[in-house]
Amino acid sequence: MEVGAPDYLAGERQTAEFDVESMKVTWAGSRHALEVSDRMARLVASDPVFRKDNRVMLSRKELFKNTLRKAAHAWKRIVELRLTEEEASRVRFFVDEPAFTDLHWGMFVPAIKGQGTEEQQQKWLPLAYKMQIIGCYAQTELGHGSNVQGLETTATFDPKTDEFIIHSPTLTSSKWWPGGLGKVSTHAVAYARLIVDGQEHGVHGFIVQLRSLDDHMPLPGITVGDIGMKFGSGAYNSMDNGVLRFDNVRIPRDQMLMRVLQVTREGKVIQSDVPRQLIYGTMVFVRQTIVADASCALSRAVCIATRYSAVRRQFGSQNGGPETQVIDYKTQQSRLFPLLASAYAFRFVSEWLKSLYTDVTEKLQRGEFSTLPEAHACTAGLKSITTSATADAIEECRKLCGGHGYLANSGLPELFAVYVPACTYEGDNTVLLLQVARFLVKTVSQLGSGKVPVGTTAYMGRARHLIQCKSNVQSAEDWLNPQVVVEAFEARSLRMSVACAENLAKFPNPEEGFAQLAADLVEAAAAHCQLIVVTKFFEKLQQDIPGKGVKKQLQILSSVYALYILHKHLGDFLSTGSITPKQGALANDQLRSLYSKIRPNAVALVDAFNYTDHYLSSVLGRYDGNVYPTLYEEAWKDPLNDSVVPDGYQEYIRPLLKQQIRNARL
Amino acid sequence: MEVGAPDYLAGERQTAEFDVESMKVTWAGSRHALEVSDRMARLVASDPVFRKDNRVMLSRKELFKNTLRKAAHAWKRIVELRLTEEEASRVRFFVDEPAFTDLHWGMFVPAIKGQGTEEQQQKWLPLAYKMQIIGCYAQTELGHGSNVQGLETTATFDPKTDEFIIHSPTLTSSKWWPGGLGKVSTHAVAYARLIVDGQEHGVHGFIVQLRSLDDHMPLPGITVGDIGMKFGSGAYNSMDNGVLRFDNVRIPRDQMLMRVLQVTREGKVIQSDVPRQLIYGTMVFVRQTIVADASCALSRAVCIATRYSAVRRQFGSQNGGPETQVIDYKTQQSRLFPLLASAYAFRFVSEWLKSLYTDVTEKLQRGEFSTLPEAHACTAGLKSITTSATADAIEECRKLCGGHGYLANSGLPELFAVYVPACTYEGDNTVLLLQVARFLVKTVSQLGSGKVPVGTTAYMGRARHLIQCKSNVQSAEDWLNPQVVVEAFEARSLRMSVACAENLAKFPNPEEGFAQLAADLVEAAAAHCQLIVVTKFFEKLQQDIPGKGVKKQLQILSSVYALYILHKHLGDFLSTGSITPKQGALANDQLRSLYSKIRPNAVALVDAFNYTDHYLSSVLGRYDGNVYPTLYEEAWKDPLNDSVVPDGYQEYIRPLLKQQIRNARL
Ligand SMILES: Cc1cc2nc3c(=O)[nH]c(=O)nc-3n(C[C@H](O)[C@H](O)[C@H](O)COP(=O)(O)OP(=O)(O)OC[C@H]3O[C@@H](n4cnc5c(N)ncnc54)[C@H](O)[C@@H]3O)c2cc1C
Ligand SMILES: Cc1cc2nc3c(=O)[nH]c(=O)nc-3n(C[C@H](O)[C@H](O)[C@H](O)COP(=O)(O)OP(=O)(O)OC[C@H]3O[C@@H](n4cnc5c(N)ncnc54)[C@H](O)[C@@H]3O)c2cc1C
Repeated sequence: MEVGAPDYLAGERQTAEFDVESMKVTWAGSRHALEVSDRMARLVASDPVFRKDNRVMLSRKELFKNTLRKAAHAWKRIVELRLTEEEASRVRFFVDEPAFTDLHWGMFVPAIKGQGTEEQQQKWLPLAYKMQIIGCYAQTELGHGSNVQGLETTATFDPKTDEFIIHSPTLTSSKWWPGGLGKVSTHAVAYARLIVDGQEHGVHGFIVQLRSLDDHMPLPGITVGDIGMKFGSGAYNSMDNGVLRFDNVRIPRDQMLMRVLQVTREGKVIQSDVPRQLIYGTMVFVRQTIVADASCALSRAVCIATRYSAVRRQFGSQNGGPETQVIDYKTQQSRLFPLLASAYAFRFVSEWLKSLYTDVTEKLQRGEFSTLPEAHACTAGLKSITTSATADAIEECRKLCGGHGYLANSGLPELFAVYVPACTYEGDNTVLLLQVARFLVKTVSQLGSGKVPVGTTAYMGRARHLIQCKSNVQSAEDWLNPQVVVEAFEARSLRMSVACAENLAKFPNPEEGFAQLAADLVEAAAAHCQLIVVTKFFEKLQQDIPGKGVKKQLQILSSVYALYILHKHLGDFLSTGSITPKQGALANDQLRSLYSKIRPNAVALVDAFNYTDHYLSSVLGRYDGNVYPTLYEEAWKDPLNDSVVPDGYQEYIRPLLKQQIRNARL
Repeated sequence: MEVGAPDYLAGERQTAEFDVESMKVTWAGSRHALEVSDRMARLVASDPVFRKDNRVMLSRKELFKNTLRKAAHAWKRIVELRLTEEEASRVRFFVDEPAFTDLHWGMFVPAIKGQGTEEQQQKWLPLAYKMQIIGCYAQTELGHGSNVQGLETTATFDPKTDEFIIHSPTLTSSKWWPGGLGKVSTHAVAYARLIVDGQEHGVHGFIVQLRSLDDHMPLPGITVGDIGMKFGSGAYNSMDNGVLRFDNVRIPRDQMLMRVLQVTREGKVIQSDVPRQLIYGTMVFVRQTIVADASCALSRAVCIATRYSAVRRQFGSQNGGPETQVIDYKTQQSRLFPLLASAYAFRFVSEWLKSLYTDVTEKLQRGEFSTLPEAHACTAGLKSITTSATADAIEECRKLCGGHGYLANSGLPELFAVYVPACTYEGDNTVLLLQVARFLVKTVSQLGSGKVPVGTTAYMGRARHLIQCKSNVQSAEDWLNPQVVVEAFEARSLRMSVACAENLAKFPNPEEGFAQLAADLVEAAAAHCQLIVVTKFFEKLQQDIPGKGVKKQLQILSSVYALYILHKHLGDFLSTGSITPKQGALANDQLRSLYSKIRPNAVALVDAFNYTDHYLSSVLGRYDGNVYPTLYEEAWKDPLNDSVVPDGYQEYIRPLLKQQIRNARL
């Protein structure tokens, strides 16, 4: 905010009952993380090259070129300022524009790290780190996304030349979607069916050079391009998601990523002693970042809607006084505050996932694999429920802003358009929940066998208790007790999983049963994942959380999150008998009074995200709340306002008005 | 479809168990309506001017100019072909592009019809009908949308000159949002606070000329422009939603719309004998069209997702055979088929609303006003729940298409972006449900007083039974009985309203109570509206519905709609004790088996909407199912593919690769 500028939300900020600076630290994860974030956010915001407000006006070509410019400029700043890896990644985050660099750093490099041998890593990683090559992750094809084993691209070993021949045998085998592929990447990790001596050996990754490093022209046998416009304006259209076809492209044998499976000079296929479970590590990592991104996107939308709801007044003027701030309406609160709570909930669960990743990595190194399926199921499920909830929440925030939310410069339409594919990529959310369900049903079926469920399924070990326990909530206050809440969530989740398992048992063929009951299974999986989020939020509160009033606010938010989910899925809780209708009503009463407690803190709670106006890029979400003059000024910048009389008047409007339409040549 | 072109969905069409042509008639409403629709759809589809597939590529200016062109061309065709009013309106529908004409025909003309005196109508309507003037509806301001009584624009009577002075006293009084205002309209019906002799007389409509009919320049005192880009690319950006400021603009006294309130030459303000309830008639009309539009938008999305789900195959290949069509997955069915059922449900409820409108109009003419509040509440509520459900459903359909749904040419992103404001305009959906709730609570409170509830609230007259009745469902089959279903819905809705009324009574101040319980009230209102949709669907089935198997399919769809809502809101049904958990589980079983019954008919059920490929404008929703080659071909048309090496390579990519970034001038 400029020095001396008026703060229309100052009154809101004064009512806060906690120390916002301390909350910022808690949100960021540490004082250090906050400091880095803050510094990088300002660095980006103050640099005119990183301007974002014109994105939606640009044509596809202009937008894309501008993205290239930003990516190069960001890299330049990173080099010039000798930024650390952490700082560099924050810079990319605040540049806030999907770009080939996301895939280069987020998928290409990790794929080589995870699936390449020591030798391969030594050869390729330095090139990638310095961006002497730019890579993408080319897995999905026109015909196959979710079903990776169904990919059709082939990699056939030619023992004569010691090469693989990469080929796209059908139209549907065309690579389709990889980000950064269309126009930028010089290399790809491409996935293909390995064929050696006429034998198939499953799908593996191959480093393939796509373009000449001299003039960027596609190499012989390579057809590559962009797949076209995607959802929205601006949004993900800055990314060159690409199409790629191989016409018998030859690559040296050592460009197959061979950490797990090797093909020797002689054409022998050898399983290495590196365990296949390794991939779980990478998956946990990637999905942790997606959950963290969910909390960012959600908090951003909530920040905009909360500030604007405090600025916007409608109805309720008494004796000519000001109207009611729409944030004071209970309907507005009951739609908005659970999303605020969800933003915090997702933040903390992503923090916990980070520690899970460390844990998994350590275990992998120690050769301990038994807990991996649980970690894998848990991250898959959390990816699914947090991204689905976030996508819905962004649109709800937009609706909470009434008509003005529909303007591009509210920031919410583009945020939605750019966010929604998170429900699809890195695993379609429904497909992921089915995986979780499979794991849960298995866990339930093994309960009798003495196998002790671990990690986030540990509660299933108390099945005997949870299957018949009764909640002893007797007053609305009782719902503030985390133990009470967690038990209700555990009972609901366990009973849903058990019910599924019992129903499955009625089918002679378990696979057939799984297929028939899929919709119920998905609901059970979601219930399990919601329990995890609730639990991790409560666990966070057992830590020492410094700052006046901070813990208190988080307690309120944790209860809001839990009781909101309970209210939303009341059918589950009642039909499993986990709580009674009376107890459900008490939860609702408690929820209502919690909203009143959030109200005076709402604006401060979104200030704690520490977002710059540049990052928010929303007229409605401005820090200073000065919404109306800005909306008015921005309007005149639209190209349609270049002239008072619009282009097309002579040809198409005037003939109408002058009744000359019959003779008009249109 | 071209003659002789392969039909990849032919197999799906063969499994249909009903006569699709008859279903088309039922969907269209009559054989005549189908014939007109079909003819106009082809007229539009075959005319290259009406091409839509390039919309998302156009810049704002190009898009807008093209829209002007289409509007003029449509009018030309309407005149040349001497189309009837019905035909003309179908043409505008199939042109499928938001344009100033929507507001001219849909709001400007009806406002004059509804609020103008006979004389005013005679003066202005012929001009409007011939489009010698083009008008918009200028109500909303920067500061006020929902709260119409809070509008700040003033219309001060000047008895000296017999004129009104229209003025924008504040920034927030700027008109903001009216469609067609920004660049096209020559006139507006502008709403302003009437001030006569220093006295305020509420908000009224005034016909104000905005632009010269000679050169289209804004008249003195008028500042007018476009408010800028909105959600998405293409989408609603073809509309010039406008900003408008009046600087003491003078209009003749007879340009105030005076049907209800008159200002005489002498400055007397006289209430006419025309009842104020008249506005209800217009509102019922406008909202009926919105509900009809919901069924169109929803059916369009469902048509795309259904066809693509039948084309798309993923997983489940056995012995090298084809993979499973994703439409065969129960999760896909449980997400998609309820939306298909909703499309039909909304269609029939909109048909019923049309008859309600006729009924209301007749009653108005007979001077019967007692049933109007009920009709008004019911249309407000139906507008709210159908538009909210449709907005969510379009996005769900997009997700059901996996990654490819995110491509602009799937048609779904733009459909979503263009549709969502329906949740906000013509009454914010939450504000509308609060109105419904107010009506319900009043109805409940009058139950004891002998006042008999009418129309859609008639069931509340059976409160004594409904408050304590028990559903006697004992098997999944029982849920196929409409009476059983309706009673459960009635019990749920009544009990929720009664619970609200009881809780309200606990507050000393009823308004305070209403404010505190608003979130619960909105849920009760939604429950009531869902009951209406369910009931009207079942009532439709009591009519004679010709065609082999047609009624059977509709019966299945009606049950799916009802049981889906029941499952989704199970918490309501259980907490009110309207059904037991066991009965809820049986409903779910029934739902699952109904999905299997829909499956072989799914593609035929969306064919029955009779949409052309032009109207759908979706590569994924093509009638012939030939998805993959089309996706592949379309990709190459993106401007980014104009050159193999992208613009920006020299400046921004090459320096990266060549490690010349430090010295690069970016
Ligand atoms: C913006 C974006 C960026 C991307 N970036 C990359 C990238 O960089 N590299 C890359 O390789 N890929 C990328 N992808 C592709 C992405 O990974 C896939 O789109 C994703 O995995 C989903 O697969 P699909 O498109 O095949 O969906 P489908 O599997 O075709 O899904 C269609 C429908 O079928 C359902 N379904 C499928 N299988 C089952 C089942 N077994 N049971 C029940 N239901 C099922 C799904 O739930 C969904 O409703 C990207 C996609 C997008 C949208
Ligand atoms: C695409 C589009 C086209 C439009 N076209 C026209 C047009 O042609 N002519 C025209 O005059 N206008 C037009 N409008 C304006 C439209 O009618 C208003 O945006 C709409 O009425 C909503 O009002 P609002 O924007 O003031 O929302 P607000 O009332 O500001 O809503 C903001 C939030 O406050 C909540 N809220 C408001 N009041 C209450 C309450 N009493 N209780 C509880 N919650 C409340 C709402 O639920 C919402 O969540 C258009 C708008 C759009 C988006």
